[in-house]
Amino acid sequence: MTTLLKPKGILLVVSGAAGTGKGTVNALLMKEHEDFVYSVSATTRPPRPGEVDGREYHFISKEQFEEHIRNDAVIEYTEYCGNYYGTLKSELKKLDEGKNLILEIEVEGAMNIKRLFPDSVTVFILPPDYTTLRNRLVNRGTNAADDIENRMQKALREFATVKSYDYAVVNHDGQAKEAADAIYEIVKSEQHRVSRTEDAVERLFFQTKN
Amino acid sequence: MTTLLKPKGILLVVSGAAGTGKGTVNALLMKEHEDFVYSVSATTRPPRPGEVDGREYHFISKEQFEEHIRNDAVIEYTEYCGNYYGTLKSELKKLDEGKNLILEIEVEGAMNIKRLFPDSVTVFILPPDYTTLRNRLVNRGTNAADDIENRMQKALREFATVKSYDYAVVNHDGQAKEAADAIYEIVKSEQHRVSRTEDAVERLFFQTKN
Repeated sequence: MTTLLKPKGILLVVSGAAGTGKGTVNALLMKEHEDFVYSVSATTRPPRPGEVDGREYHFISKEQFEEHIRNDAVIEYTEYCGNYYGTLKSELKKLDEGKNLILEIEVEGAMNIKRLFPDSVTVFILPPDYTTLRNRLVNRGTNAADDIENRMQKALREFATVKSYDYAVVNHDGQAKEAADAIYEIVKSEQHRVSRTEDAVERLFFQTKN
Repeated sequence: MTTLLKPKGILLVVSGAAGTGKGTVNALLMKEHEDFVYSVSATTRPPRPGEVDGREYHFISKEQFEEHIRNDAVIEYTEYCGNYYGTLKSELKKLDEGKNLILEIEVEGAMNIKRLFPDSVTVFILPPDYTTLRNRLVNRGTNAADDIENRMQKALREFATVKSYDYAVVNHDGQAKEAADAIYEIVKSEQHRVSRTEDAVERLFFQTKN
């Protein structure tokens, strides 16, 4: 133990365009470290085959979602194709249990979270270069050429927002483990930030001496 | 490699009162990681038996030191008992070679370095608690009781400055290796800071696409 006291978990916001592999990286992070857990979003869209309530999403009704909004029980949400998607405040309880909570979320949502929770840690996952990103999108084989160009343009627009994030981690081909390790080290280091430990210093040295 | 490009080394400022074990921690850090090196201070005091020029200090004359000051070749310096102690700019060359440069320095000097080099990383090493610190000072056996009380008071004054540092790392008894590992992870994580990698993102994605 090199931390001062059992720390609260860290709210970890991870973003990255299609083809950056953020899902793979986050899955590895959770597989190797049981103190990392996903924040499960809530949605009003119906579950798809194979999706489990509480795993992919909390599947709730439109009425329930709107009640949560009225009760100030939703941290952030967006509407997409007539359905709500958002993060419920109840997810944050995991932080008090010492879990680091991964919010896999797009740029705008990430910036909202950082504004609401300044001590959250924001990480942007990048592909190693332009050509690799293009190859990854092509190799998925599910997109038409036009769609690939659109996704490339969208990705490049998103990369321009990297400066609003705290950290950038490159996910090289075949090295998702290294990227997951880098994020793990970032979170461990953030637990040593004085802004998180200041109170502990006060408690240790300015009360025990009496 | 999860960093964007071969990074410049990081200027790592490490402070800690007597009894915190900062020397031991830094020595371990350098022993285990060859990309961590000490910044060797310059002094005008004569070498003591066993001290080697360029290892403990750069031993130079008062005239030489004052010439360095006039030539703006000194980053920071202090006068103590009629001798100069300071850091020469030439030490920073190690950063360009990709080495992380450890500046083991007291609080005031640390704050000067942070002001001059905002991208330096400042770490404060703490003992686990008041009693442990006292025991360490007593067990050295070289200090009179009065002196121990003075050192305790000085240490407590220094701990109050921890809030000016970026990170705090606790050095528990017998766990200097863990403290060294924590500092290593802090430096590795800092290499992922967007403020350090932003230019690299520009180069990768906004020039290669042409």
